[in-house]
Amino acid sequence: MILHIDKTLSKETVEQLAAKNQAFCIEEQEHFTVITGSAVKDVPADFEGHTLNSWVFPNDNQLASREYIKATRKVDFGSFAIGGDTKNTVLIGGPCSVESEAQIRESATFMAGLGLKMFRGGCYKPRTSPYSFQGLGLEGLKLLAKMREEFGMVVITEARDASHIDEIIEYTDVIQVGAKAMYDQGILRACAKIRKPVLIKRGFGTTLQEFVQAAEFVLSGGNPNVVLCERGIRTFETGTRFTLDLCGVAWLKKHTNLPIILDPSHAMGYAYGVADLARACTAMGIDGLLIEAHPNPKVAMSDASQQLNHAEFEALLNSLKPVAQSVGYQMI
Amino acid sequence: MILHIDKTLSKETVEQLAAKNQAFCIEEQEHFTVITGSAVKDVPADFEGHTLNSWVFPNDNQLASREYIKATRKVDFGSFAIGGDTKNTVLIGGPCSVESEAQIRESATFMAGLGLKMFRGGCYKPRTSPYSFQGLGLEGLKLLAKMREEFGMVVITEARDASHIDEIIEYTDVIQVGAKAMYDQGILRACAKIRKPVLIKRGFGTTLQEFVQAAEFVLSGGNPNVVLCERGIRTFETGTRFTLDLCGVAWLKKHTNLPIILDPSHAMGYAYGVADLARACTAMGIDGLLIEAHPNPKVAMSDASQQLNHAEFEALLNSLKPVAQSVGYQMI
Amino acid sequence: MILHIDKTLSKETVEQLAAKNQAFCIEEQEHFTVITGSAVKDVPADFEGHTLNSWVFPNDNQLASREYIKATRKVDFGSFAIGGDTKNTVLIGGPCSVESEAQIRESATFMAGLGLKMFRGGCYKPRTSPYSFQGLGLEGLKLLAKMREEFGMVVITEARDASHIDEIIEYTDVIQVGAKAMYDQGILRACAKIRKPVLIKRGFGTTLQEFVQAAEFVLSGGNPNVVLCERGIRTFETGTRFTLDLCGVAWLKKHTNLPIILDPSHAMGYAYGVADLARACTAMGIDGLLIEAHPNPKVAMSDASQQLNHAEFEALLNSLKPVAQSVGYQMI
Amino acid sequence: MILHIDKTLSKETVEQLAAKNQAFCIEEQEHFTVITGSAVKDVPADFEGHTLNSWVFPNDNQLASREYIKATRKVDFGSFAIGGDTKNTVLIGGPCSVESEAQIRESATFMAGLGLKMFRGGCYKPRTSPYSFQGLGLEGLKLLAKMREEFGMVVITEARDASHIDEIIEYTDVIQVGAKAMYDQGILRACAKIRKPVLIKRGFGTTLQEFVQAAEFVLSGGNPNVVLCERGIRTFETGTRFTLDLCGVAWLKKHTNLPIILDPSHAMGYAYGVADLARACTAMGIDGLLIEAHPNPKVAMSDASQQLNHAEFEALLNSLKPVAQSVGYQMI
Repeated sequence: MILHIDKTLSKETVEQLAAKNQAFCIEEQEHFTVITGSAVKDVPADFEGHTLNSWVFPNDNQLASREYIKATRKVDFGSFAIGGDTKNTVLIGGPCSVESEAQIRESATFMAGLGLKMFRGGCYKPRTSPYSFQGLGLEGLKLLAKMREEFGMVVITEARDASHIDEIIEYTDVIQVGAKAMYDQGILRACAKIRKPVLIKRGFGTTLQEFVQAAEFVLSGGNPNVVLCERGIRTFETGTRFTLDLCGVAWLKKHTNLPIILDPSHAMGYAYGVADLARACTAMGIDGLLIEAHPNPKVAMSDASQQLNHAEFEALLNSLKPVAQSVGYQMI
Repeated sequence: MILHIDKTLSKETVEQLAAKNQAFCIEEQEHFTVITGSAVKDVPADFEGHTLNSWVFPNDNQLASREYIKATRKVDFGSFAIGGDTKNTVLIGGPCSVESEAQIRESATFMAGLGLKMFRGGCYKPRTSPYSFQGLGLEGLKLLAKMREEFGMVVITEARDASHIDEIIEYTDVIQVGAKAMYDQGILRACAKIRKPVLIKRGFGTTLQEFVQAAEFVLSGGNPNVVLCERGIRTFETGTRFTLDLCGVAWLKKHTNLPIILDPSHAMGYAYGVADLARACTAMGIDGLLIEAHPNPKVAMSDASQQLNHAEFEALLNSLKPVAQSVGYQMI
Repeated sequence: MILHIDKTLSKETVEQLAAKNQAFCIEEQEHFTVITGSAVKDVPADFEGHTLNSWVFPNDNQLASREYIKATRKVDFGSFAIGGDTKNTVLIGGPCSVESEAQIRESATFMAGLGLKMFRGGCYKPRTSPYSFQGLGLEGLKLLAKMREEFGMVVITEARDASHIDEIIEYTDVIQVGAKAMYDQGILRACAKIRKPVLIKRGFGTTLQEFVQAAEFVLSGGNPNVVLCERGIRTFETGTRFTLDLCGVAWLKKHTNLPIILDPSHAMGYAYGVADLARACTAMGIDGLLIEAHPNPKVAMSDASQQLNHAEFEALLNSLKPVAQSVGYQMI
Repeated sequence: MILHIDKTLSKETVEQLAAKNQAFCIEEQEHFTVITGSAVKDVPADFEGHTLNSWVFPNDNQLASREYIKATRKVDFGSFAIGGDTKNTVLIGGPCSVESEAQIRESATFMAGLGLKMFRGGCYKPRTSPYSFQGLGLEGLKLLAKMREEFGMVVITEARDASHIDEIIEYTDVIQVGAKAMYDQGILRACAKIRKPVLIKRGFGTTLQEFVQAAEFVLSGGNPNVVLCERGIRTFETGTRFTLDLCGVAWLKKHTNLPIILDPSHAMGYAYGVADLARACTAMGIDGLLIEAHPNPKVAMSDASQQLNHAEFEALLNSLKPVAQSVGYQMI
């Protein structure tokens, strides 16, 4: 249940009453927002007389629910925004991993040249084997930050686990919570305390309901800048790496108020299908696309098979613009 | 392995040699096509000296493979065609089930008025419970045939099992092999003997490889007019009815030469997501769309939740046209 | 809803009233059993005054439900029975396919020598590729019948599709409805009209609810001799061929009154795991086991990797007996 | 590739050479063990002349592979051991969550009374919603440690994320890496540095190969005391909470040298099926069982539906003993 509590009560009082009711409390401009579990269906006695408005929910999709906020939330990245009434579909490009200064600069130069506003690159790789390349770590973060300074693009990178979340928050503009880390409360709770945008990827074994609840961890802590990212689920079909769940995207658009970004690269796992899928995603009317590209995919240290080369990436961008327009969006 | 055998040999001889090698034989204009299992990697001794050309394959995706025929096959429906160099995306509309003459005429009148060329309606419903509406059977087939006469649309309906496949073949223009009947060799072998187009739906538990092999049952019997239809697979996600597998569509476009039609209605299971998904499908650059619509979905005798009403269907069609254009196709 | 209707009404009358209410009607010794869809929650007016007893259900698991019949149904195979209070776990052995008279006699000789009461062998193989061995068909059925005459074992074989169901019913003692044919109403309705036992395998993409509803097709037609067989579902895990669903077996034991037979051979897909799995199945307290064995698995014409050889089969049987005893069953 | 390097080289030298080859190095009694990625198929030049033995692998299942160590590894818990030649199946009981001192003492008293050697209880609950009970945290850990002192049972509890892994390691005897934390390198790398036994649960969306690779993170860091725990995977079937993958257990027994413990409680999600499943697991010949039980399941603060009450737990234990014996194991 969500309650809007008037400001005649002090912050201390509301926080105390919230704690007593095992609820979260967020201070906002005009009111306090108090959030209990969805099993609560009546205004708790403690808040009677001070409740400006209240919402009851069938499940723990509460702050993210369209029953609470009808319009899609606007998330601001400084130089641009998505969601709200922007009708922007932001294209996020970059390599799977930051591998070296030369590689990441070549990539950033190219992406900035295409006019891209947001740049990706992995520093802590959530590899499933200890014997694979694990990423450059802090050194990679510093290289990414350097690219931001040089090219003015917003940078995004992934937190692998809670042990380095502070570094990620310090060096990057947008925190990506990866598919394998999506249940990681150490990460989610750290992201709840900041105001930088957080992009949460759906785990490949995660239900839509659980996915939204991961966002609730961040939202209920007071950070409203959450973006959801569908990147493919694991199914019986192994001809492709994962199965991009666009039915799930339709569900998310219907039931949640969060902007949605899609990642066809990881879903497909093969470069040959990425362009077709990216066009399909764009025609859904979405807030962004995350596409992996590498100056020379054949020598990439991770995800070699699915990264586009730069010529393919540019051709894709050109083909996406009319698709976005055909559904009333602009590709930025 | 596929062999093209010259016509200096008689039909009887080639058929005999094919049988001896446990192979299929199709007589074509300029040559015989002989197809063995893919384990055969060398021209069998029996065909030496008569083999014009031969193709070896890594698996039993042979006649449907782009290694054999590079371009997408053209399938002709009389008043129009798909595949080949047509760049047509055909919209197939109609109700889930034929329920009565009044209902099916209202639907056909509407669809023909929109200019649709192909009309669907189920007569033998593959329900999972004996206690649900099972379809009008032969009576439904006759009503569909009547609609074809009155409105000039090509009609398509589904074969549920082999016990009534002869009736389906007699009354309908296009034979739909349903998702639950896709392994039914009684149906597939009957479809292999005719030349009417056959639309095979992917089973919801069927791998892409098995899906293509179902088409091989029809192709190897001599019917080249096969169309594949992806309609959603069963995954752990139950927020939607099935999961439309567009990664799989990318795989099929890469590996097979058959036209592809998508069915977002059954995948989604809820009317609210159908339009977004249909636009996504169209942006993939596909050969057709199958969308369920009912004059009054609330009283539909099957699939009530996923059928569009007529106003929604018309709005959808209008929105699809620019999406098709944006990827170089026209919606017909 | 299930109704027991008294016999003061004539058979014709009850059948007429059932048809009027879109219900099934079975004549039994002491009463008529009338079955409507589960949406019906009140005794229909037509049956008022003649209803001896009635049961309401939350879904279309009705005749198979433990809410209707508490104890597990007894199914009689002539020389033995399972279910009821028998505490029998019947071991069904034999090769995947009947390949030749020599092969099937070698197998039958061995199985009869071990004291097995039921013998399996496939004649119509539901292969996913037209280029694989498809079975001996009618010739195989005749060989199986010959083995029954010679060795006195009950024989079971699989119906692939409705086009040959009459032959299967004529030649075999138990009709197996295969995993790929489980939705085939042509087969199910034919099995409903006879009294021979029917073993229905769960489709690998089939929910437990749909599985039970397939049994309802047979039960509602008047054949009470239905046995369920779990044989593995298709999941994301491809290290094994399928995933044997023993949680599902626990569900079936709780919710249905039908005997349950398990097939670990198809689930595992590799001979190495079959023995461990068969012991696990037996410890569940089940009514039977279906295990594939071949005189020489290496040259088997289908499922070569998962069939045990005869020495392995005998060792397995010996190890199963104490496991069955430890849970109060006897292996027969 | 695994290399055994002789001790004529100093530890520093071997570690330096290992680092140069991006390999792990473990010092053992008689030799150094150096582990590279499985792509390496030849002894690196740096180790020539000092390699006592070497093993090549088809994938990154290396230290855990039966190709490296044939017998199942023995893991010692102080008062007892599993694996090796012990033929022990250890029953681990306790509630889902530590809820209060009274509750945990009641549970520990009961479990110790039954003779159990290992006691479980969750302190950091990996809930999918921020609005659910999250566990007592450090307070719970202290209560568990108290129970160890009072009752002499080995205690096991779960690490939810890397932010509290140090506390878990300090207070508990066995570290459980939960299904949702299984890819968490912060946790895995911390567990690699200690020698306390680590029980890794398979993620519900995790392949067997990835599961074993998680163990490789711990093993390659030098901690040989790893136990695998299968607890159900997520499939399309929702009649039960998850699907216990016993085919996967057969695969693990064949391909890995690690002891295996099964958790039927979480797989089933309903108390009614736990006993049958536990008997099935036991008949597989496994090293342990993890069963949730609560003094009063109805008021449990988490997993209420799947926990057994104490009477059910005792009855289950009694029924498991003969099953274990029937396959040559003893239940401890």
